[in-house]
Amino acid sequence: MTRLEIIGLEDFGDVRRGDSISELIVGACVRQALTLTDSDVLVVAHKIVSKAEGQILRLDEIQPSARALELSRELGKEARLVEVILRESRRIIRKGGGTIIVETHHGFICANAGVDLSNVGLGRVALLPRDPDASARKIREEIQQRLGVAPGIIISDSFGRPWRLGTVDVAVGVAGLRPVKDDRGTSDRYGYELKASVAAVADELAAAAEVVMGKKGEIPVVVIRGYERKGEDGSAQELLRPEAEDLFRSF
Amino acid sequence: MTRLEIIGLEDFGDVRRGDSISELIVGACVRQALTLTDSDVLVVAHKIVSKAEGQILRLDEIQPSARALELSRELGKEARLVEVILRESRRIIRKGGGTIIVETHHGFICANAGVDLSNVGLGRVALLPRDPDASARKIREEIQQRLGVAPGIIISDSFGRPWRLGTVDVAVGVAGLRPVKDDRGTSDRYGYELKASVAAVADELAAAAEVVMGKKGEIPVVVIRGYERKGEDGSAQELLRPEAEDLFRSF
Repeated sequence: MTRLEIIGLEDFGDVRRGDSISELIVGACVRQALTLTDSDVLVVAHKIVSKAEGQILRLDEIQPSARALELSRELGKEARLVEVILRESRRIIRKGGGTIIVETHHGFICANAGVDLSNVGLGRVALLPRDPDASARKIREEIQQRLGVAPGIIISDSFGRPWRLGTVDVAVGVAGLRPVKDDRGTSDRYGYELKASVAAVADELAAAAEVVMGKKGEIPVVVIRGYERKGEDGSAQELLRPEAEDLFRSF
Repeated sequence: MTRLEIIGLEDFGDVRRGDSISELIVGACVRQALTLTDSDVLVVAHKIVSKAEGQILRLDEIQPSARALELSRELGKEARLVEVILRESRRIIRKGGGTIIVETHHGFICANAGVDLSNVGLGRVALLPRDPDASARKIREEIQQRLGVAPGIIISDSFGRPWRLGTVDVAVGVAGLRPVKDDRGTSDRYGYELKASVAAVADELAAAAEVVMGKKGEIPVVVIRGYERKGEDGSAQELLRPEAEDLFRSF
């Protein structure tokens, strides 16, 4: 039977700068009597990675630029927060309704550059990890050193979407799995050759994990069991649509 | 332990016009010795619903309009297919690269109005169900009549996204569950009030289901077990962002 299991790691505790995410994962698995295997995929909420890597800023230490002050007035959004968003961005894609949609230095297009005020302490904001693929690889390598197994790793964040309400989690960092599942060139049972069948499976696994994680940070890591992980490498960059093929970037 | 199970229903066989999806689901569950409960959520690929409802067209019976012929030349896309897409649409949002992004009569914004050539037979196309929420409610009511339990139902389709490559499944029809999980107004462990924490959980469950379904139609229905389904009603329309709040619709 085709069956996927999505298991939340609980009692993770608060993550602090310098903590080892792999050590915390291994500890939580031990407490839950969960034996990781090479075929598991772990989805890790980016927030705890950002905390461990010190990607947390105190807003009262931020000096807003003239541009941030101008945008702050235009959008009714706190100037220091706008300043942090601008620093994390290559460019603004769109703004309005109190939201700035930007392209981050990583190439992600998302609201507020992924800068987030929840689950980090009052007056603080979490940035995305500087290089989420590298963060994912580090977690994977350390788990392999500790346990001798190398599960796939996805680092996730909650992104909004145009046209649809609500956030859906996506992969911002990937290690040890192909982020897309490409069925192009194969045929369906009628002999029709599949032409557009590329599923963003790392995003789908991140979305699945969010259902278990929730939004309050209690379950920051989820083990996905039963997915036939393909490949040993992969990058979240592969999920980014090149600008030339994008109908909703340049106006 | 917080755990979600995603179980594929196999050996579904080909679905034909007039077939009862609920009867096929009940049959597949019996063969897999799977006892459905009120707290399960079933994700049903829209393709089998469209087939059962006769939402399949033969392209050689379609007469393209002048507008379809013009767009066909512009996009290098088959004129009969373009004609079907136009008939399924309220308006075109964007076009280019062989793709037309439209707003369907339901209000979904997606490529090619959800008109799909795979898994329906050569020369045929599947449309979306005419009223996917109603289709979901019908499946739910019939399962309740047959088994005395009423699981939540999600009808799913694979949508592309701006900015990111690959498709991710989303909910186009919903019955018996709240499609969004609204944590706004509650606080995180630091006392920060969550302001933007609305997860599109029906979309996340649809995405999770796709990982098990795959793209070749062998597993058109998935049972999700362990999700704490809220509410007895809900509509996929609740997942649509109102135009006035949308930064990527009107240019």
